[in-house]
Amino acid sequence: MAPLCFTVAPARKNGSERLRRLGAERADGAFLAALCKSRWARFGRRTQVSGLHWKLTCISTHENVSEAPNSLLREEDLQSGPLTTEHQRHIQGVPPVHPRMRANFENMIRAAQNSICLALENVDGSGKKFREDAWVRGADGGGGISRVLQDGHVFEKAGVNVSIVYGTMPPEALQAASAGAVARNAGYARDERVPFFAAGISSVIHPWNPHVPTMHFNYRYFETDKGMWWMGGGTDLTPSYLYVEDAQHFHGVLKSVCDRHDAAFYQRFKKWCDDYFLIRHRGERRGIGGVFFDDLNDRPAEELFKFSSDMVGHVVEAYVPIVERRKHMPYTEEQKRWQQLRRGRYVEFNLVYDRGTVFGLKTGGRIESILMSLPLTARWEYDHQPAEGTPEWDLLDACRHPREWV
Amino acid sequence: MAPLCFTVAPARKNGSERLRRLGAERADGAFLAALCKSRWARFGRRTQVSGLHWKLTCISTHENVSEAPNSLLREEDLQSGPLTTEHQRHIQGVPPVHPRMRANFENMIRAAQNSICLALENVDGSGKKFREDAWVRGADGGGGISRVLQDGHVFEKAGVNVSIVYGTMPPEALQAASAGAVARNAGYARDERVPFFAAGISSVIHPWNPHVPTMHFNYRYFETDKGMWWMGGGTDLTPSYLYVEDAQHFHGVLKSVCDRHDAAFYQRFKKWCDDYFLIRHRGERRGIGGVFFDDLNDRPAEELFKFSSDMVGHVVEAYVPIVERRKHMPYTEEQKRWQQLRRGRYVEFNLVYDRGTVFGLKTGGRIESILMSLPLTARWEYDHQPAEGTPEWDLLDACRHPREWV
Repeated sequence: MAPLCFTVAPARKNGSERLRRLGAERADGAFLAALCKSRWARFGRRTQVSGLHWKLTCISTHENVSEAPNSLLREEDLQSGPLTTEHQRHIQGVPPVHPRMRANFENMIRAAQNSICLALENVDGSGKKFREDAWVRGADGGGGISRVLQDGHVFEKAGVNVSIVYGTMPPEALQAASAGAVARNAGYARDERVPFFAAGISSVIHPWNPHVPTMHFNYRYFETDKGMWWMGGGTDLTPSYLYVEDAQHFHGVLKSVCDRHDAAFYQRFKKWCDDYFLIRHRGERRGIGGVFFDDLNDRPAEELFKFSSDMVGHVVEAYVPIVERRKHMPYTEEQKRWQQLRRGRYVEFNLVYDRGTVFGLKTGGRIESILMSLPLTARWEYDHQPAEGTPEWDLLDACRHPREWV
Repeated sequence: MAPLCFTVAPARKNGSERLRRLGAERADGAFLAALCKSRWARFGRRTQVSGLHWKLTCISTHENVSEAPNSLLREEDLQSGPLTTEHQRHIQGVPPVHPRMRANFENMIRAAQNSICLALENVDGSGKKFREDAWVRGADGGGGISRVLQDGHVFEKAGVNVSIVYGTMPPEALQAASAGAVARNAGYARDERVPFFAAGISSVIHPWNPHVPTMHFNYRYFETDKGMWWMGGGTDLTPSYLYVEDAQHFHGVLKSVCDRHDAAFYQRFKKWCDDYFLIRHRGERRGIGGVFFDDLNDRPAEELFKFSSDMVGHVVEAYVPIVERRKHMPYTEEQKRWQQLRRGRYVEFNLVYDRGTVFGLKTGGRIESILMSLPLTARWEYDHQPAEGTPEWDLLDACRHPREWV
């Protein structure tokens, strides 16, 4: 049975605290589930339960399916027929919505999921295959395919997800979903829920060996119902030990892909990445970066789609040679412990700052898929400080002061 | 050298993204440190650096000291002289600020820190003592004493902190610091920084043995500069395995303390605790609760102080007998793994929802003290579900559906 997630609020703004707390408690209850199924909830209608007025919003239902359908899109998004009303809306300064982009993006990320999982299974070498969980989001359309490989030879926990979401997000989720500029220009009132479409692929690969870095990538396409759209994404590396040739290789591949699309992209997106993956309360980045961009809609969607596809298409080339080079290196218990401390930092970033995680939690995403990015194990020691000049210190220094690698 | 934390923003609202990103990068830089030292920053003044206008706010400096001073309060708060202006302000419906409450609260929490640490050292039995780090917050007044015992016989990581903070919080931190009602009534504009005083004791005790529960408590006193004050706190238990007699003992002690102050307190604060420690995205609480309250200022400060002191004074009686009863129980690798998964949930709650953590991170608190609450190690497995009827399932069920213990 799929879980139901609710936001529950008293319908009147001056609802007492008692009302709010009752809401939290009763969100578990069968009577709310029944209300939600009646679909009143989905539209945020008022309803009356045992004398109290409630405003209910059902934010998601995930239903596991034995096999992912050929497409997770709604029927109308698969047609290449005439433009719908929403495609005809124009926002000044933003190129028009591309009528086939929903389908194009789904095709691209699903093909990439297949090929990347295959490449990771090969380098893992354990014979293990990714476990697949597919789910759909009820009658609304949308769904996802989570693939996880846990306990491999090389990989402790590797996940590659695709998801297609038709939903409405609370206004703060639109803020979380984008870097802000898009949200401000999208034409919604402060407290208005925003209907949106999102398609994305995201992945985090945590290896056992502390000499093999963790790698993350995520590419996504958003539309809101008022003609706003944007793309975002990035690929970044989180080593526990710094190998300059690995950093150069990784950044080198990313740069060469960027350069094919715009000579300014690499510098711009490398810096954006260094800024984005900052654990602000620590004053350090979670790793040595890569590229990151968001809110991109300053050129036709086809161009940005080609760029995103090209980036996704080079994840394996950027990462796998590093895995091959490091996966058989011996390591000490001390080095494993250091890796675990860095994994703790990874958790801090993901739960406190990561836009995708915050967005997922606020829009009632599938929890297991969202939190798949967390490592299998992590560690927090009080006031741990590596001694200056050690390899651990060197890595920390690179996280504190981003370097130029290529 | 103590770390300096900044918030940096372009002085003009229409500052370009380039400006913002430059800000993040340069926040590390020596030139900002120098500016901050000049104390311009502290008052949010505009300043001009290489042609760009910045608004800087220095939010904290922590300086380690070899020994904690007798009091961490400002000189004027130690006097029992005439009321200062801020004590004379009245907010309708809120009893007046008690002129000696800052000093009373400090005395109470520092004495409690001593006695609780001693009791924990005794039950740990390793002969290890809590390590103490004391720090002061520069010329502003305030500071703290962190005590940590890591790698004991019974305790994996135990921390007991006191802190005294004079600061200004961004408006969203006032929201985070309180349950909301206080923030709305405190008389500050939406974007106004709020001068505040806070004194608190907080503690998280993580044992090795999965049969010994984790325990947390936290009691705090707040004042803002406009005559608003409130107290908050709580004591709660997070077992990995559920022992009914432990839950009954723990809740029983808390109830008997509550009952001495108000017959309605236990029911009210037990429920508040169940609501507060909800990991919303999971639909489960982190543990089996205890009591929790916040924003309390509906009776004279002395009365609430007596109640808070009494609660702090019974932490040992509520917890230590459970530790004694369970600490020698044998456990399997499987049980340890389950404990680690529950520790992962603990991390999720603390980093995503915990008001104290969010408040600390937003007001530039001392990171090591704030994140001391995190366990030494934690674990996340993809889609882990204990089988129905197992002891693991029983615990999860109690986290999903709070029970009445006394």
